[in-house]
Amino acid sequence: MNTPSSLEELIDALRCLPGVGPKSAQRMAYHLLQRDKPGALRLAQSLDRAVESIHHCAKCNNFSEEEVCALCRSPRRDASLLCVVEMPADLLMMEQAQCYRGMYFVLMGRLSPLDGIGARELHLERLVRRAQEQPCEVILATNFTVEGEATAHYIATLLCAQDIKVSRIARGLPVGGELEHVDSGTLAQAVLERREVTE
Amino acid sequence: MNTPSSLEELIDALRCLPGVGPKSAQRMAYHLLQRDKPGALRLAQSLDRAVESIHHCAKCNNFSEEEVCALCRSPRRDASLLCVVEMPADLLMMEQAQCYRGMYFVLMGRLSPLDGIGARELHLERLVRRAQEQPCEVILATNFTVEGEATAHYIATLLCAQDIKVSRIARGLPVGGELEHVDSGTLAQAVLERREVTE
Repeated sequence: MNTPSSLEELIDALRCLPGVGPKSAQRMAYHLLQRDKPGALRLAQSLDRAVESIHHCAKCNNFSEEEVCALCRSPRRDASLLCVVEMPADLLMMEQAQCYRGMYFVLMGRLSPLDGIGARELHLERLVRRAQEQPCEVILATNFTVEGEATAHYIATLLCAQDIKVSRIARGLPVGGELEHVDSGTLAQAVLERREVTE
Repeated sequence: MNTPSSLEELIDALRCLPGVGPKSAQRMAYHLLQRDKPGALRLAQSLDRAVESIHHCAKCNNFSEEEVCALCRSPRRDASLLCVVEMPADLLMMEQAQCYRGMYFVLMGRLSPLDGIGARELHLERLVRRAQEQPCEVILATNFTVEGEATAHYIATLLCAQDIKVSRIARGLPVGGELEHVDSGTLAQAVLERREVTE
């Protein structure tokens, strides 16, 4: 009786956002209706536009408005390298680091059986086909979390079976890192994966 | 170059939600586009519908789709009591407690000079006019926070100047509360505001 139906619907609809429960959804709805109606209308428009125009790039699987994204079409990228990342945000981090000029494949997730995300949901068969096209090295840059490691291991098994060269980005101390302040797991890995110093 | 413009716009638009920074907005946008496009479209629709149809009730200032909301129109409410709450959620809590059958006035906020919310932004002149209409008692049920207390104090000054009877809901130990586990501020207030036991 006290909550108008369109307000109830809005509160319910806001819960599709990750990490938003009933209380936050209520707070968000009140805020928008009370203090930011233009923002609400702009959000509605952006949602419609993004849902309509955003698809996955046919080559790298990243979000794109075109069939093949600008990065995959660029002639200035090294087509012999294919870097596998979990999310578009990871690709952005790689680009910002300016350490890599090859191609990408964005998994749009990671193996996570508890969330029902297996090899099929990640379209790993597309990654294998993509890797067979041209690259001579696939660099696995999934996160160093349990799930990211499992994903990297699974992909490595798939690709090695096709005789494709696979590498994994290095673990170790961060640049500027001090032994005193690093966690013991990282330090142990840094020792295990030590590199020979020549000259 | 790497983020499609409609995705960037969506991430930006999501930041109008309270408590959502750039990282959360990105996560939300990825989630919607990757896993819940129907949810995104439904959210867009609900935003449009709510912004269009939700207004403030002319009497109680609560969100309403009609000029005067169902609660204010109800003949079964006690029109001699007017309860002042901060937000619609507080009104719902009062109704759920089933302890009150009078009318309401929803401030839609609290005095908060740091956020630029003063007497004008809360439309307190409307509250004064409403209180002069009929009620013989105004019950202040703002929160017992610093801002809620300041708001109650300010409103009480306004209304007392008009010779309107004003009361404040009681502070004290919660029902089922134990002295051992209650904070000292609450306990001190419970002692200060002790009631005489008769009979």
